[in-house]
Amino acid sequence: MTALLERAVRFEEVDAAGIVFFARFFEYTHEAMERFFDGLGPQGYVDLIVRRRIGFPAVHVGADFRAPLRYGDVAQIATTVTKVGASSCTFRYAITRASDGADVATVESVVVSTALDTVTKIPLPEDVRALLARHSVG
Amino acid sequence: MTALLERAVRFEEVDAAGIVFFARFFEYTHEAMERFFDGLGPQGYVDLIVRRRIGFPAVHVGADFRAPLRYGDVAQIATTVTKVGASSCTFRYAITRASDGADVATVESVVVSTALDTVTKIPLPEDVRALLARHSVG
Amino acid sequence: MTALLERAVRFEEVDAAGIVFFARFFEYTHEAMERFFDGLGPQGYVDLIVRRRIGFPAVHVGADFRAPLRYGDVAQIATTVTKVGASSCTFRYAITRASDGADVATVESVVVSTALDTVTKIPLPEDVRALLARHSVG
Amino acid sequence: MTALLERAVRFEEVDAAGIVFFARFFEYTHEAMERFFDGLGPQGYVDLIVRRRIGFPAVHVGADFRAPLRYGDVAQIATTVTKVGASSCTFRYAITRASDGADVATVESVVVSTALDTVTKIPLPEDVRALLARHSVG
Repeated sequence: MTALLERAVRFEEVDAAGIVFFARFFEYTHEAMERFFDGLGPQGYVDLIVRRRIGFPAVHVGADFRAPLRYGDVAQIATTVTKVGASSCTFRYAITRASDGADVATVESVVVSTALDTVTKIPLPEDVRALLARHSVG
Repeated sequence: MTALLERAVRFEEVDAAGIVFFARFFEYTHEAMERFFDGLGPQGYVDLIVRRRIGFPAVHVGADFRAPLRYGDVAQIATTVTKVGASSCTFRYAITRASDGADVATVESVVVSTALDTVTKIPLPEDVRALLARHSVG
Repeated sequence: MTALLERAVRFEEVDAAGIVFFARFFEYTHEAMERFFDGLGPQGYVDLIVRRRIGFPAVHVGADFRAPLRYGDVAQIATTVTKVGASSCTFRYAITRASDGADVATVESVVVSTALDTVTKIPLPEDVRALLARHSVG
Repeated sequence: MTALLERAVRFEEVDAAGIVFFARFFEYTHEAMERFFDGLGPQGYVDLIVRRRIGFPAVHVGADFRAPLRYGDVAQIATTVTKVGASSCTFRYAITRASDGADVATVESVVVSTALDTVTKIPLPEDVRALLARHSVG
């Protein structure tokens, strides 16, 4: 099962070369991850961060960029879960351009379940694990 | 007395119109304010925020933009203090383009001394008040 | 007539004091202006910038900040037109917090109709003038 | 030979978890790449982008994050060249925390020499190739 996010390129997200600055794609995929966690309930990720004090910082990121996005383009971001461990999981984001379906980029990200107040690794919470399992393609 | 900051436009700070996005100028002036507070000692603003838990959020900002900046330009930001109150003060930032001295923008900002943990207004700390007085042109 | 935009605070928009960084509010209001220009047709602002090469850079900005926003908050931005000139117009943005209607900030912005390729002031295009008139409260 | 950049964490670069947002590290490494290209002469990268219209967009990025940075930290970024091809090269960035030398992150980036006006791959310019060779550890 795949979660989808559609997101227009914003006016200030391009760079001096006139294309979306590559670091912005990681903001896009983080937003996709936040929307993914909304599967836990309304404001799922906010609730994790603010109330439960559990975060999912990235420990590894890999990205391949194949086509640029420009102002006026809309990105479609398809999120899947490719691996689930004891404390970590791997997300795979496929970014396409809405207008023509062009393959823009693929981003893979390994995140670790972390207690924010002590910055220590913790097992994936049960509700998170269940959500991941529902979207896992591994 | 005027504090000066020189800062090159960064690759990702332009917008789809090819000029520095107007909101970035407030990042520039905040950086100038941080450098101003270094007059308290090394990492003066960091120390205020992290250890003393005192911040200076803006309650009012006014800006006039007269010339654009582009990638490759260097901004010069001259910081002065135009007013000092019991809990607040007013900074004035004059932004010029280093290459030709062009008048780019003027930003005025009123900030309030704030206890970060309770988000309540507090009197300006004595060392801050002394620093402000040394740079005041009011 | 008022145009409305609702926008959740994003994970990376807070600062080291834990509240939305004040410069972000100008990104919010720019997004509101872009949505306002969608009244010209689909992707109205994109079309202005990319095809017609007409932009609306700010020449003046004034803002009052009354309450902070935090991660988890949703901003509501109400856009009105308070003044229309030959080449310029004034937008007024009222930002409230969706959860409790708290008055967060008011931003006023004067923008000038500009030919992007020559960076010269031009009269407001007729369709833009008509759109502004429909939303004018002046 | 290694090029070095030292860069303080900025007030607005942390996220709602209180640490530098992971996408910011790619802004840090891009800045390091810009400074690297200053080896071509003053404003080396600006000259490439603005006058020569040659850019170096990333086609692949890989990053490992090992320790967080917070407001108040200073990042040290050591840039080396690990591979040089006909049109592309690979940069390796080692990010450490200045205060204690902690190993924060490693970023690897493959960039492709690109004519910006046609967005087509071109051979590495001779002066760029010579600069890369001087810093190559491959």
